[in-house]
Amino acid sequence: MTDPKLYTCAGSRGLRCTWAAEEAGVQIDLKLLPFPPRFAAPEYLEINPLGTVPLLIDGETRMTESCAIAHYLATRGGMSDLAVAPGERDYAEYLDFTYHADATITFPQTVYMRFALFEKDKGWAEAGEAYAKWFWKRLVKVEQRLDRREYLCADRFTVADICVGYALILAERVGLDDGVPESLKAYRTRLMARDGYRRAVEREMAGPRAI
Amino acid sequence: MTDPKLYTCAGSRGLRCTWAAEEAGVQIDLKLLPFPPRFAAPEYLEINPLGTVPLLIDGETRMTESCAIAHYLATRGGMSDLAVAPGERDYAEYLDFTYHADATITFPQTVYMRFALFEKDKGWAEAGEAYAKWFWKRLVKVEQRLDRREYLCADRFTVADICVGYALILAERVGLDDGVPESLKAYRTRLMARDGYRRAVEREMAGPRAI
Repeated sequence: MTDPKLYTCAGSRGLRCTWAAEEAGVQIDLKLLPFPPRFAAPEYLEINPLGTVPLLIDGETRMTESCAIAHYLATRGGMSDLAVAPGERDYAEYLDFTYHADATITFPQTVYMRFALFEKDKGWAEAGEAYAKWFWKRLVKVEQRLDRREYLCADRFTVADICVGYALILAERVGLDDGVPESLKAYRTRLMARDGYRRAVEREMAGPRAI
Repeated sequence: MTDPKLYTCAGSRGLRCTWAAEEAGVQIDLKLLPFPPRFAAPEYLEINPLGTVPLLIDGETRMTESCAIAHYLATRGGMSDLAVAPGERDYAEYLDFTYHADATITFPQTVYMRFALFEKDKGWAEAGEAYAKWFWKRLVKVEQRLDRREYLCADRFTVADICVGYALILAERVGLDDGVPESLKAYRTRLMARDGYRRAVEREMAGPRAI
């Protein structure tokens, strides 16, 4: 059986998947695309009509949601410590934070990026800034959760940390760090010091740039 | 043990949870709030500092993500046909669509609602309309998936249909139906004809309006 193929752009939310693969020791065939692929590599639309990254192809399976893919890769060989199993303490919280990361935390970042960075000449920069504030306010749940914890769930590093951690990593990169609490910056530093994270970033930087 | 408490606003994405509870036959203590609760019921912020709905409280467990809660309620008494089990065919797709529903499909709807409906006097209506188009384009994955299927996963109704179906139900309600393909309108009609859906809507309409 061939390795799962992961199509992504370096540094995009697909980094959650590259990172999860490294932490889980899952071999993937990494396909790096220029950003944004729907304009810079339009032939990608034939593979993924959504035009979004990441895309995972594993046999007959096709997935496009970064947090779902991260969990899938971490459990592809059976349940592992990178996930929290049904019935285990913090299972519900693990579920909740893996959904929260993209649906509540990363989404306002993408609106900010579009209106305040990529398309700021359209005159909607203020609408983008409104979502920067939205993003900062939504960090309260993660902040409270980590008040007396090193990791989000089950007293260990899991995919929930990968999912949420990526949003904090993105915040620094796109100029959204002003409203990020110090405690979350320290959490991010801990996550970025992991060997699995470093290897994932290195792979994304070194990879080929074509489909 | 007391029933799980679900805080939500009638018709909000918390409907995914009310609906999942009805389909799964899980008793919940439904707490209906006026919309938006962070302004209309500020005391709610003491219970949920995010100010968002839904919020599920089940013993020590607290969850705020509608799709995570829907899956949790459907599997609270053990794995059921409403979910797809790890190892079962379409498990990866089930994961993917339950994340896709909110992170990719509902998020642009909320940006449209904010800028083009709720705050249209701010002059950002066009920015909102840009996300209406974004929403329509992102329906292609669901459309292709349902091309030869009645339900998204495993040839049966599951929480993935609840998660994605809610986005289509919301589209009709907020004036986003122009770009929704006929096949997805027919899928929505099938979902809304379910007894579980009707009971959920009835409960949300009849419930008390206070915390």
